[in-house]
Amino acid sequence: MSDLEKQAIDAKKAALILMNAGTAEKNRALAAIADEIIIRQPEWLEANDIDMEKAKQAGLSKTMLDRLRLTPERIEGIADGVRQVISLPDPVGVVDKMSERPNGLIIGRRRVPLGVIGIIFEARPNVTVDAAVLCLKSGNVCILRGGKEAINSNKVAARIMQDALEKAGLPKACIQLVQDTSHETADELMHMNDYIDVLIPRGGRGLIRRVATEASVPVIRTGEGVCHIYIDNDADLDMGARILENAKCSRPSVCNAAECVLVHKDIEAEFLKKAIPFLDKYEVALRCDEQALAVVGSGRAEAANEEDWDTEYGDYVLAVKTVESFDEAVEFINTHGTGHSEAIVTESYSKAQKFLDRIDAAAVYVNASTRFTDGGEFGLGAEIGISTQKLHARGPMGLEELTSCKYVIYGSGQIR
Amino acid sequence: MSDLEKQAIDAKKAALILMNAGTAEKNRALAAIADEIIIRQPEWLEANDIDMEKAKQAGLSKTMLDRLRLTPERIEGIADGVRQVISLPDPVGVVDKMSERPNGLIIGRRRVPLGVIGIIFEARPNVTVDAAVLCLKSGNVCILRGGKEAINSNKVAARIMQDALEKAGLPKACIQLVQDTSHETADELMHMNDYIDVLIPRGGRGLIRRVATEASVPVIRTGEGVCHIYIDNDADLDMGARILENAKCSRPSVCNAAECVLVHKDIEAEFLKKAIPFLDKYEVALRCDEQALAVVGSGRAEAANEEDWDTEYGDYVLAVKTVESFDEAVEFINTHGTGHSEAIVTESYSKAQKFLDRIDAAAVYVNASTRFTDGGEFGLGAEIGISTQKLHARGPMGLEELTSCKYVIYGSGQIR
Repeated sequence: MSDLEKQAIDAKKAALILMNAGTAEKNRALAAIADEIIIRQPEWLEANDIDMEKAKQAGLSKTMLDRLRLTPERIEGIADGVRQVISLPDPVGVVDKMSERPNGLIIGRRRVPLGVIGIIFEARPNVTVDAAVLCLKSGNVCILRGGKEAINSNKVAARIMQDALEKAGLPKACIQLVQDTSHETADELMHMNDYIDVLIPRGGRGLIRRVATEASVPVIRTGEGVCHIYIDNDADLDMGARILENAKCSRPSVCNAAECVLVHKDIEAEFLKKAIPFLDKYEVALRCDEQALAVVGSGRAEAANEEDWDTEYGDYVLAVKTVESFDEAVEFINTHGTGHSEAIVTESYSKAQKFLDRIDAAAVYVNASTRFTDGGEFGLGAEIGISTQKLHARGPMGLEELTSCKYVIYGSGQIR
Repeated sequence: MSDLEKQAIDAKKAALILMNAGTAEKNRALAAIADEIIIRQPEWLEANDIDMEKAKQAGLSKTMLDRLRLTPERIEGIADGVRQVISLPDPVGVVDKMSERPNGLIIGRRRVPLGVIGIIFEARPNVTVDAAVLCLKSGNVCILRGGKEAINSNKVAARIMQDALEKAGLPKACIQLVQDTSHETADELMHMNDYIDVLIPRGGRGLIRRVATEASVPVIRTGEGVCHIYIDNDADLDMGARILENAKCSRPSVCNAAECVLVHKDIEAEFLKKAIPFLDKYEVALRCDEQALAVVGSGRAEAANEEDWDTEYGDYVLAVKTVESFDEAVEFINTHGTGHSEAIVTESYSKAQKFLDRIDAAAVYVNASTRFTDGGEFGLGAEIGISTQKLHARGPMGLEELTSCKYVIYGSGQIR
């Protein structure tokens, strides 16, 4: 039996206990985790120093190093995040659809934890805590498998949380870290159908696609976003320019940032004249189709190729596509979008409604930036990711999306 | 491009149309299907005769032949089933959680179809129609891939439904049948992530396990049931005997039938004395642990081996296991159950509540037969299967379980 299998068996046992832990009990454990994080900050920082040193030697990019780094301020922020989860409502135990059937059976649907959740993520040590506490609050055991770059930081984070669990009277096995960060353990995790109820990969596109296609355990795909802003011929063009600036430039590395603007041919020249100064502030590179290039000029933009329509740049780069009609815009988005977040800017009531109806995505906007697709902005409090699949959960996943249900049936001897 | 890929592309296109079809439009198509089934009964029966002839030559079992057979009465029943689906409420378009956020964005969650559903099933021609009409009512395009035994019957069924769709003004591609029943097409279907949103296998354990472990498309597992009845020492033993008889004998081939009875040691002798006469009526074979065997006698029963505790007999066979305590029963069920349906018979209030809390299954019963786990019995109207997984849907899956959601956001120029 592998080490991971032993962990998985412990996880499944712990899940049966955590499944019935009350809200007060779980909140006590969360408070203990927040306290322990602050108390043991020096230990965590020391481990992070080792990871940082190795990462520098390995030549990781500046962005990657920044993601990996812990500071006292960041650790405070992480502890605050844990305390915020305490204040969120517990979805577990809520019963809906309860009614008495004609034969006297009383049948209700009770919200219950999913069970054991595997999280496969890359080099952000804050994810270790964020993911673990959302799982804990929703009554789920988690098995965390982070990247090798953060392994020392993650080991300390897991120890801190496990010690807090123990102090609060819950099994340490409720939060587990895979110690071995080789590819083999990720593969093993992806096929532990007897122990793991769901896998949530968090990280880059490559990781998510690999897990989604290779795992036999059910997966929730998150965070792939090729998002569009469609500027309709009936748009308020000033509003359109501000929305485009925000959607592209406020944080281009995140999944809800826009990658492509579709512009109706009738207002293209006028719109681009308004929008480009906003984009110039951030030196946004433009990849234009022929018509847009004719407007913008090849001094400012370059010609787009077919790949541009399917690329998540995650950077200050924007594809610009001219459309002949509203219908062409809808079809283009449904073909090239990843089903994440899509927006129309228009003053036309009927085109706004049609856009909401016909676009097949997790979040569809009229006259607002795609950047709002986020658990906090949607009022869910916190999120474990943004699902771009249709099964189980779609859009920002809060605590409720980390639950399943079971039917409870009160009988008095009924037979069929 | 393969034939199947062409079908899948057509399916995805049709899904974008069907996604926004109104309830009246879908109901008209359902009525047309019901009518067409009756009108073209001779054509369907003729095709079924060919399948039956081949199946007899291939030496299929009597049970299999019975499942394959269509009769005028069965066809009427299928058409009636279609008409019942017309009367079910349409889950699509319902918006919940709509509210205005502090920044003025109005955000709501709208129920939408899943998109394209692949159904892989075995030799029951009625499944072709049942599955297709539930998908249609919930706004989903289906790609049906039935077993080779029923291919002639299925081809006619698909043609009948497609002609009805056309008469009702919906694309024929809303209901599609895979013409080639080789293993290759099933494999291809399991990996069409770009076109298919979810796969639902319907049939035996082997099929379901294969699809669940091999597919990269998200799968909903259905219908594996190793269900238990636990007779507590505080049970009304007469009630227990009647519930056991019903759960085991009323239809042993279905997934909600009981496979194992757990009996508390204190009442074992008394209970088995009451229960065995009921089981004798159906000549139920008993597989007993040592203690139970001592009570029943080796003339009536045989000794169980470890495999018996994990076997879905689907037949008049029952495993009998003695437990020392309530806790042992719970642990045994959580270890050996398939998460389908589990029942306790007890007069103890606190053990009843604890059983509901601690058993990890789709449906948990107090003092009733597990045979009630069914869409109709639960008030869902109809079901496409009983999910034994925790992701997306658990228990009987009605129309609502065939939907996803999308967030619709009404803005007025908001940026973040």
